[in-house]
Amino acid sequence: MRLAVLGAGAVGENVAELAGEYGHTVTAFADSSGAVIDSAGIDVAAALSRKAETGSVGEADHEAALSADYDVLVEATPTTLDDAEPGFSHVRTALERDRHVVLANKGPVAERYDEVRELERASRGSLRFEATVAGAIPALATIEDLGPERVSAVRGVLNGTANFVLSRMAAEGLGYEHVLAEAQDLGVAEADPSFDVQGTDAALKCVILANVLSGGGYSLDDADVEGIEDIPGAALELAAEDGRTVRLVGEVDEEGVRVGPRLVPEHGTLAVTGTLNIVQLETEHAGRVNVSGRGAGGPETASAVLSDVGRLPRLE
Amino acid sequence: MRLAVLGAGAVGENVAELAGEYGHTVTAFADSSGAVIDSAGIDVAAALSRKAETGSVGEADHEAALSADYDVLVEATPTTLDDAEPGFSHVRTALERDRHVVLANKGPVAERYDEVRELERASRGSLRFEATVAGAIPALATIEDLGPERVSAVRGVLNGTANFVLSRMAAEGLGYEHVLAEAQDLGVAEADPSFDVQGTDAALKCVILANVLSGGGYSLDDADVEGIEDIPGAALELAAEDGRTVRLVGEVDEEGVRVGPRLVPEHGTLAVTGTLNIVQLETEHAGRVNVSGRGAGGPETASAVLSDVGRLPRLE
Repeated sequence: MRLAVLGAGAVGENVAELAGEYGHTVTAFADSSGAVIDSAGIDVAAALSRKAETGSVGEADHEAALSADYDVLVEATPTTLDDAEPGFSHVRTALERDRHVVLANKGPVAERYDEVRELERASRGSLRFEATVAGAIPALATIEDLGPERVSAVRGVLNGTANFVLSRMAAEGLGYEHVLAEAQDLGVAEADPSFDVQGTDAALKCVILANVLSGGGYSLDDADVEGIEDIPGAALELAAEDGRTVRLVGEVDEEGVRVGPRLVPEHGTLAVTGTLNIVQLETEHAGRVNVSGRGAGGPETASAVLSDVGRLPRLE
Repeated sequence: MRLAVLGAGAVGENVAELAGEYGHTVTAFADSSGAVIDSAGIDVAAALSRKAETGSVGEADHEAALSADYDVLVEATPTTLDDAEPGFSHVRTALERDRHVVLANKGPVAERYDEVRELERASRGSLRFEATVAGAIPALATIEDLGPERVSAVRGVLNGTANFVLSRMAAEGLGYEHVLAEAQDLGVAEADPSFDVQGTDAALKCVILANVLSGGGYSLDDADVEGIEDIPGAALELAAEDGRTVRLVGEVDEEGVRVGPRLVPEHGTLAVTGTLNIVQLETEHAGRVNVSGRGAGGPETASAVLSDVGRLPRLE
């Protein structure tokens, strides 16, 4: 397949670098200030060198990437809330051109799911978004295989930063602020960690899962979200005395979407440690299926994007 | 799709019962002594009542099911070793008729993988066998999505009976014979448990995984297999003092296939309890992906069969 990759952050960069290994050609690659376009295939290494030197992968207009020759638009620009722009417009342009779209950007399927599905129905292209939920974990593919109508609920630990902080607080008996600063030093937490520690990122993933299970209707406003900022170290100590610990758990069921700190058994399935993520599916006939692994990271998320590309039918 | 279900044990029975819910029609259903065939769709409930009363689902010749009208042959007769008969011949007949085959029977893909793939290449039908490895756990679908060439090794706890026995021995400080008898009383272990406790069942699953990862070449003879019968309770106590426990672990990597008791961290990912199974995939770009759930059981395995049916292309 010919790929146009929008976004040259960790995910876009890794998709562009790995595409050849998966048998694909990158025909356009854009960041927020420029693009490189070549219908015969761009030189990815040269584009990345250029970005390291000049700050941009190329000199073409970055909007021009959208009208380049490609089979699949890989949308890996940063997630935005509310109108999910400019990601939403990128999706619309590609689907209106009868091209496929693979999202790493959560915005369009968390905030405007019904609209993107409507655009997909009118298109010969298809939309996939495995990378938007829990990185390397094939959560959506597993739900698709089981049949969304046979998955009654999903529960999961879906934010690696929050989980790292909670695991360290519990293991070392340290306070939130201390562990957060340490996580920032290690590069596990961002300078502004609010998206992760307030639960927004986990909630977006849960909203996407809710849309998949119910066929749409959810956006971030529908989620009941609480973060981990106010958890005192003493709460973790008390939990440990009782053989339990605290995790930021997302829950999706017929009552809606909820994200918040929950007490879980200390050595139970949900108590993954460090930056790991886990998704638990409650199924009608197959019992509980757990999938865990790395929920973030450039190569891991790029791997999910490229698995999605592999699932797409050839465009005629 | 129209399904011919061979085998009316727990798996075949559940496939027949659930097929309608998944949008399929059962046009033939056979056990070892008889069959019921109707190209408009058999009455599954009546066939199962008849089996409860008379011992067989119907009066037709059970071989006639193979030549009935169907799109997919579901082969759910008992697993046999060496020549994998009669399962292998059933697979051959269906593929030679350009029909799809979905296996719950491990024999053909564990013992004669290269031959069945050869038959598949010459057929317009396809072969799938998710249900042969770890029941409800979508192990093969996950490998297919990631790309077998990007999975370097697989490790797993793949036999629920052996795992139940080891978990109970560790948790209760009881000896092997005592726990095995208890497992037999509970119906978790068969009257002749050798297939499970000697590691054969786990080894067959590992051989199938090895075939999928390397494109063939493996049979049970290639596996290095040790069971759990000779593990003294004292070994589990010693392991526990060191924060570890024992699991019957199967391993598939470039060095081959091995199954045997292994020391694992007591609260680690591999130390699933009871009859649960887990599959760990070591991937090139996505790190380690763990999938756990119910590895056996009629509805669980039938769910894997029906997911496979859902992945098949329509026959023209």
